[in-house]
Amino acid sequence: MKVRELGEFGLIELIARTVGKAKSRDLVVGIGDDTAAWRTEKSIQLGTTDILIQNVHFTLGIATWRELGWKALAVNISDIAAMGGKPGFAMVSLGLPAETEVDNVVELYRGMKEIASKFDVDIVGGNISRAPVVIIDVSLVGKASGSLLTRSAAAPGDQIAVTGYLGLSAAGLKILKSKRKLDLKTTAFFREAHLRPCPRVAEGQVLVQHGVKAAIDLSDGLLSDLTHICKSSRVGARIWTNKLPIHPLLESAFKKQSLGLALSGGEDYELLFTARRGVINKLKKVMSSPITVIGEIVDDKQGQITLLNSEGKAVKWNETGWDHFKSPGLTRK
Amino acid sequence: MKVRELGEFGLIELIARTVGKAKSRDLVVGIGDDTAAWRTEKSIQLGTTDILIQNVHFTLGIATWRELGWKALAVNISDIAAMGGKPGFAMVSLGLPAETEVDNVVELYRGMKEIASKFDVDIVGGNISRAPVVIIDVSLVGKASGSLLTRSAAAPGDQIAVTGYLGLSAAGLKILKSKRKLDLKTTAFFREAHLRPCPRVAEGQVLVQHGVKAAIDLSDGLLSDLTHICKSSRVGARIWTNKLPIHPLLESAFKKQSLGLALSGGEDYELLFTARRGVINKLKKVMSSPITVIGEIVDDKQGQITLLNSEGKAVKWNETGWDHFKSPGLTRK
Repeated sequence: MKVRELGEFGLIELIARTVGKAKSRDLVVGIGDDTAAWRTEKSIQLGTTDILIQNVHFTLGIATWRELGWKALAVNISDIAAMGGKPGFAMVSLGLPAETEVDNVVELYRGMKEIASKFDVDIVGGNISRAPVVIIDVSLVGKASGSLLTRSAAAPGDQIAVTGYLGLSAAGLKILKSKRKLDLKTTAFFREAHLRPCPRVAEGQVLVQHGVKAAIDLSDGLLSDLTHICKSSRVGARIWTNKLPIHPLLESAFKKQSLGLALSGGEDYELLFTARRGVINKLKKVMSSPITVIGEIVDDKQGQITLLNSEGKAVKWNETGWDHFKSPGLTRK
Repeated sequence: MKVRELGEFGLIELIARTVGKAKSRDLVVGIGDDTAAWRTEKSIQLGTTDILIQNVHFTLGIATWRELGWKALAVNISDIAAMGGKPGFAMVSLGLPAETEVDNVVELYRGMKEIASKFDVDIVGGNISRAPVVIIDVSLVGKASGSLLTRSAAAPGDQIAVTGYLGLSAAGLKILKSKRKLDLKTTAFFREAHLRPCPRVAEGQVLVQHGVKAAIDLSDGLLSDLTHICKSSRVGARIWTNKLPIHPLLESAFKKQSLGLALSGGEDYELLFTARRGVINKLKKVMSSPITVIGEIVDDKQGQITLLNSEGKAVKWNETGWDHFKSPGLTRK
């Protein structure tokens, strides 16, 4: 059945059933009223919104509807993680062509529900509208558990570190687009990296607890996101290219291209943060996911990044990451 | 200059300058970090999101960019008003074709800023993305000042009332689309009704203070929105068609069509609410905007509306309002 046949209100009822009952005891009003409503104690609330647009952020030939649902919520949860917070309540603006299959919409919400359950998020509202392409805009409210991780708190002398590996998501997209044949396990690994990113919420909490002040999540690519930190904090950065955490599977599948993917590939949704050496050494002991020191914050060349190779020589690099209006091509790299 | 030439990050800086400094003392982090952050006391928070899509909700030939900005925020403020709350922090997801003029984007934000200032809202975050058409998705968080106005609290014996007039926005769209010539003042009146709706925030507060429990804002049209109340509250409704508040200018410009516009025309953003007769009589004395009793809640025919004419006879009516997937035509009526 098409959404045109079911109609808006039938679709809303079906979505409400798919989403199911909210779990949070703080929720007062969920799906189906003019707004959602929830109780708060004295606290700091976090709010973010991020959109996925068909043929800009994704193509339906590559991602399944369930993966899209997962990712649409994941990218927002990642923003909350990058502030050191816990996500809570999500609202979804959905734009759909009238010919969309109802089953696909249900799958989309199943994907959202799946990651929502994993991170204790309740989907509490939103709206549905006809649209020329599929549009999934999620807004998410969360809570800070203590201090905040901001882009503006990096200080000269800090080391720069990342969780996990770099460039896997961009590599995944390359593989999915090219239909390049790798063994099944490797393909699944890269597909997962691109389409089912796992936001670093627990890691963000640990960073805050250990006194880290500066972080960002990697959505546009390492160089681009580190530039955000450098500009906001009015500092410069040095990156040691031979220290970047490049996964063995990336290395073997992409050889010389892997450095470029690690530097400029977007959508890894790892956390990039800066802190004193002693703090990072402690973090390495308590964090379950890998942490790699990749450079240092300096006080000269504000807003700029210098890339240094294994001999300590400056390397030139032109690609910086994704710019929505300047970057070529129809889909995000 | 086109947004393609300025680029995403230049555009974000320009928008941040246009939006200016936030006013709320509760704001901790505004535009430019992974999320916005604000302090809350023990309270009830309200969250809503509503989207405007080019050629679905508006056409650029009819609305100016500044009017679009106003309206995109207004429709969200109206949802908060309909819960009896006060709006606080807005986030904006913007989708733009790469050929969009930068000046138009600035005008859009000026329109948002204008209504934001009027209602003490701060624009604290969002994102920008390339898109095939203009997409403006606003999410808004507010605070309940006391009890909530919900769709599910209407009770048999309640009277049904509305603030202001019905059908003016739909009439405005008809006039703007047809380029029908009316005198300048009348044209401006209808244009304003359609493109610069003024959400009933103060009125929502007064409703709560006087013990009203059930309300909705009129976005889809009287019959459609009243049906939401009837279904959520498991009650029926009778509407007296000769009691509907039809503005003299609507009557004179649309003659016999005016009843249809009042019943099914959407986007008036007035408040529709139900309460005991005595409460409504008190409200009429204290409310600065007009309030009209248009019917009553009954316990039979759950989820249904009966229209009665001046002789008390049932009238048939087929149009119920806007359904995003079933309604004909490219733009909202």
